[in-house]
Amino acid sequence: MSIALTILGCHSATPRVNAHPTSQYLEINSKHFLIDCGEGTQRQMRKFKVGFSKINHIFISHLHGDHVFGLVGLISTFGLLNREKSLTIYGPRGIRQFIENQLHISQSHVKFELIFHELTSSKSELIFEDTKVEVWTIPLHHRIYTNGYLFKEKVKPRKLNMNVIKQFKEIEFCDYNNLKAGKDFVISNGKVLKNEQLTLDPPKPLSYAFCSDTCYKPTIAKIIANVSLLYHESTFLSDREDLAELTKHSTARQAAKIAKTANVEKLVLGHYSSRYSNTELFKKEAQEIFDAVELAEAGKKISIDS
Amino acid sequence: MSIALTILGCHSATPRVNAHPTSQYLEINSKHFLIDCGEGTQRQMRKFKVGFSKINHIFISHLHGDHVFGLVGLISTFGLLNREKSLTIYGPRGIRQFIENQLHISQSHVKFELIFHELTSSKSELIFEDTKVEVWTIPLHHRIYTNGYLFKEKVKPRKLNMNVIKQFKEIEFCDYNNLKAGKDFVISNGKVLKNEQLTLDPPKPLSYAFCSDTCYKPTIAKIIANVSLLYHESTFLSDREDLAELTKHSTARQAAKIAKTANVEKLVLGHYSSRYSNTELFKKEAQEIFDAVELAEAGKKISIDS
Repeated sequence: MSIALTILGCHSATPRVNAHPTSQYLEINSKHFLIDCGEGTQRQMRKFKVGFSKINHIFISHLHGDHVFGLVGLISTFGLLNREKSLTIYGPRGIRQFIENQLHISQSHVKFELIFHELTSSKSELIFEDTKVEVWTIPLHHRIYTNGYLFKEKVKPRKLNMNVIKQFKEIEFCDYNNLKAGKDFVISNGKVLKNEQLTLDPPKPLSYAFCSDTCYKPTIAKIIANVSLLYHESTFLSDREDLAELTKHSTARQAAKIAKTANVEKLVLGHYSSRYSNTELFKKEAQEIFDAVELAEAGKKISIDS
Repeated sequence: MSIALTILGCHSATPRVNAHPTSQYLEINSKHFLIDCGEGTQRQMRKFKVGFSKINHIFISHLHGDHVFGLVGLISTFGLLNREKSLTIYGPRGIRQFIENQLHISQSHVKFELIFHELTSSKSELIFEDTKVEVWTIPLHHRIYTNGYLFKEKVKPRKLNMNVIKQFKEIEFCDYNNLKAGKDFVISNGKVLKNEQLTLDPPKPLSYAFCSDTCYKPTIAKIIANVSLLYHESTFLSDREDLAELTKHSTARQAAKIAKTANVEKLVLGHYSSRYSNTELFKKEAQEIFDAVELAEAGKKISIDS
């Protein structure tokens, strides 16, 4: 079990030569997700060797351009690359019209199935689930309807403790799945072997919370409590908390307060405003509240092993 | 009088790390135009120091993504930069809906006036004119409705030959505009001074023709006859003329044939397919037909002085 988060872009507003709008590539429990897709994301994916064919699910936080203007180009490129697998896009209501209108007018007829999962709820909801991962929305508060996303590894089966199991000849291969599922084993003399005796705990499930864009919203701490990794936007430093409030963004200090309240293991900061040339100041400000802080930067890969 | 053409991107189809989709910045007779706007154009503009505020007119050849997917982001950035001047966009019918729908859904409310000049004609037409420049469409033949654009300097006023004028005290400052306009001067004794005696020819007007995307279309040679500079797409080499025909693109040889027939001064090639890593092959092939060939590459500035 592990998480690897590759930052493709982490600056706010307009793309610049060395400042790319928001996009992230997340590998979690062998699943691969793209989160947000500002202009130039497909170029960043190529630059940082993100395999296009691995992406089957894209999560868009909100429909401001710096989070979505690269999406139609990426979909169009998937088409040019003769993609056949379906692609599911999660995002606010309106995203279907936004993309389909562009594909129609530009005559970018893709042959694969494009599935839209449009979001409207103001409550956290489970929007994706398979055997390995769950994805929940994190309702945020921005100038436009916005969700963060919480990616959670599922609890894996218990591990067989073969050194012990070998001592009981009655336990056969066909019993292993029951043991992994946590069941006890009854031997022929009626004696019960407790599961804990025969198996080991699986690794702790990891989790990643993506929170951008949002004003300071303390209630999200409950949804993201104890996550392994939290990305929380910090568009401003506290010197411009007034501007953060006005534009419904957060400061580095506020991001750190969320991280502390939610008791996360590590905080990643990003979505920096272009007014700041020295991003180290964000780390410094956040660390006055919460110690385990890392700065997002394009191309950086942040990994966590369980 | 001069032309300076800055190539911002010159590759076909999908953006890659070192291959940017079509966009060009043209300075002609002190006017500034943007031509096509693939994804990432605004980043290329910043990289190559193209002043955002100089752009008041954008010409889009067609609505395929590699020529237009960067436009909404650029317009949105103009808005974030508090632009107040109007912006006029020339392009195929549908471009207004394409852009306005995206601006509406992304809530990118720009405060400046956005004027759309939608094109539908299959004949060359004058679409822009001021005291310095005329712009005409060049109907092309591609898989979707497409126009090239012909930018023509207007004939400048004749130059005063002050060495001669000084000899005639009767010619006053208020007469100069008539002389520049080509009129003769009648002195008090009734004698006529011919204009050619008092003025010099103005520099020859320059012109630039942008032709992308198109199959080989010999009839355009008449529209672009004798231009100073021709950009003609060459997506393929002659080895894949079959593919050029199928996708309604041109080969380098075909571009050179157009340049030769139209008697242009210089040919610029671009819109290279990603299948070719060595663009020098395009130049070599074209030069078998036409000598004055230059290869487009991102960041290259091609200047012509009259």
